[in-house]
Amino acid sequence: MGSMIKRLAVLGSTGSIGQQTLEVVRALPDRFHIVGLAAGKNIDLLAEQISEFQPRFVHCQDKIACLPDGEYELLSLEEIASHPEVDIVVIATSGKSGLSPTLAAVKAGRRVALANKESLVMAGHIITSEAQLHKAQILPIDSEHSAIWQCLEGETQSVARLILTASGGPFYRYSSAQLEEVTMEQALVHPTWQMGKKVTIDSATLMNKGLEVIEAHWLFNIPFENIAVVIHPQSIVHSMVEFIDGSVKAQLSYPDMRLPIQYALSYPERLANPQLPRLDWSHINQLTFEQPDFDTFPCLKLAIEAGKREGTYPAVVCAADEVAVELFLSQRIKFTDIAYLIEQTMEHHQAIPSPTLEEIITADAWARKQVLQFASGGNP
Amino acid sequence: MGSMIKRLAVLGSTGSIGQQTLEVVRALPDRFHIVGLAAGKNIDLLAEQISEFQPRFVHCQDKIACLPDGEYELLSLEEIASHPEVDIVVIATSGKSGLSPTLAAVKAGRRVALANKESLVMAGHIITSEAQLHKAQILPIDSEHSAIWQCLEGETQSVARLILTASGGPFYRYSSAQLEEVTMEQALVHPTWQMGKKVTIDSATLMNKGLEVIEAHWLFNIPFENIAVVIHPQSIVHSMVEFIDGSVKAQLSYPDMRLPIQYALSYPERLANPQLPRLDWSHINQLTFEQPDFDTFPCLKLAIEAGKREGTYPAVVCAADEVAVELFLSQRIKFTDIAYLIEQTMEHHQAIPSPTLEEIITADAWARKQVLQFASGGNP
Repeated sequence: MGSMIKRLAVLGSTGSIGQQTLEVVRALPDRFHIVGLAAGKNIDLLAEQISEFQPRFVHCQDKIACLPDGEYELLSLEEIASHPEVDIVVIATSGKSGLSPTLAAVKAGRRVALANKESLVMAGHIITSEAQLHKAQILPIDSEHSAIWQCLEGETQSVARLILTASGGPFYRYSSAQLEEVTMEQALVHPTWQMGKKVTIDSATLMNKGLEVIEAHWLFNIPFENIAVVIHPQSIVHSMVEFIDGSVKAQLSYPDMRLPIQYALSYPERLANPQLPRLDWSHINQLTFEQPDFDTFPCLKLAIEAGKREGTYPAVVCAADEVAVELFLSQRIKFTDIAYLIEQTMEHHQAIPSPTLEEIITADAWARKQVLQFASGGNP
Repeated sequence: MGSMIKRLAVLGSTGSIGQQTLEVVRALPDRFHIVGLAAGKNIDLLAEQISEFQPRFVHCQDKIACLPDGEYELLSLEEIASHPEVDIVVIATSGKSGLSPTLAAVKAGRRVALANKESLVMAGHIITSEAQLHKAQILPIDSEHSAIWQCLEGETQSVARLILTASGGPFYRYSSAQLEEVTMEQALVHPTWQMGKKVTIDSATLMNKGLEVIEAHWLFNIPFENIAVVIHPQSIVHSMVEFIDGSVKAQLSYPDMRLPIQYALSYPERLANPQLPRLDWSHINQLTFEQPDFDTFPCLKLAIEAGKREGTYPAVVCAADEVAVELFLSQRIKFTDIAYLIEQTMEHHQAIPSPTLEEIITADAWARKQVLQFASGGNP
């Protein structure tokens, strides 16, 4: 596509990643053009975005009457994701709502810039095989996967290990007893990243990192045994790749999601963007690394275990986590109950190997019910 | 060349880099075959190497009578470097003796694995233009340049800055007054790398890093303004590249020259070699970074200044340093006199812009004489 203007559709345009995607587009108006916007409930912000970017396609979960006038078509998420006049579909919705449009985009052979974790975690085997079949490209937006992708550029067939870094979240030094007392307010303060609530909590439990391990497995076709996690509190090294000769490549930058977003949009080019911060080596004194504590942060272990078990297990962990985090955010369970509820749900799950999309959706619904039941005192 | 066996000639086979090159060949006998060996004075070791590797071409500075019998031809360095039956010429000689064979190899369109700093520092403009003309590839063996090269793999036209790391050497915390008292024995102990004497002293004065900046300028065609140096005492990050979007890639490994040597030999492939160490992230607690102290270590500044001034200046700094280090190693001058003598020589130099090879050699000889004259009390 060279230096042509790329036509983007942003699904989840009012969320954290969606808004930062639009910031990148504002900074590089000669390179990117918004043709589609879709949002869930933040109708006021969506209305503003429609006025500013004048997209041709719009999707809105409800309250369509509140949208401004304009020359746009109202389409479904799937119709926008697979539209032939969209060059890149940015999937920035959260939770399982990303799954269906991702699949639609992939089946239409679109280029997908994927920020939604759940799609690959729940249905990695389906999405990657459809992508291969329809020659669709899945470009990661997560900072960790973008780092790995950047480190793999120009390298072929010689990966020994992926090393995902994790900030460790705000409670990394806490004991299990201290974690019991963590409040919602404490958990929503992330030391290095600005993110949505769900992701912030997942980052504090390390569930986020576990889901990223599953994503990395599917994105880069690497066995779980060859994916490691290292705690790196400064969030400067976003991940690393170790090659078969022992050489390691790392990608570094300040924690700012606009960089991985822009890289996914500009790939294979890189574009100068004065708004993106440069690492200042006169202020970076040290980068520290340590091993993750799987016992105090069981969510990491649970997610990786689910990934290894395959089938419907990852979808179950994903769904159970979504509900458990909601319960924590509404102050109905303790921080440590999140892992407990997920573990209980996993243990009671009758998994289906190589599930269809319908079986995944069923497992997801089952897990959500189970968590609520366990949380309300139902006997696990 | 795929998985064919590559035929190597190692010029400087008895030095530190030469010996480590042969270790890589021993570890991967199905991939590399030694067809040429050349050494200066260590005739005993060369004799052993000839017996072990049975090369077809041999060069020896003197004492040819001491070499073992064998089916080899005695050739000049230049004849071996340009021989059509050599796939890769490893230039591992030290000092200016690398210049002539490097030029011969490049003019013959060979693939050159270059460990010799002086060739590019003294005659970068000649070597790189001849390489372009004859489609010769120059592959760096220095760990810093190998790191940059690896980080550039798959990237095009989007470099903002090269960031060379430096261990800082054994005296990095010393004051100028403390540096005055440094003995030869102290200077020969390098904290992280096993190297020859000249390179170890250059590493302690930071002259090494200055020469590497000049090399990087020629190897990667990057202006001096866009090459930075950062002190990184652990020598794990071997160098970094910052791209125009603010993303930084770094190459990491334990300090072991066999890795960059092997990469230059195996490129564009990477080869598994169980003898090469893997980074153990359970033992790497921190990586630290700080700005170089140009005032206490003036050699770094002098070399970069010579690089920027171009012409015969880099050759003069290189030659002056070689003689000054010899004087220090023979305990005839103080550690801090090394920089002083180089600076004096630079200041008295009448530079020639875009010099021919002959003019470079003349400037080199002039600088050597000047240093000796200044050192013996001749009025600068």
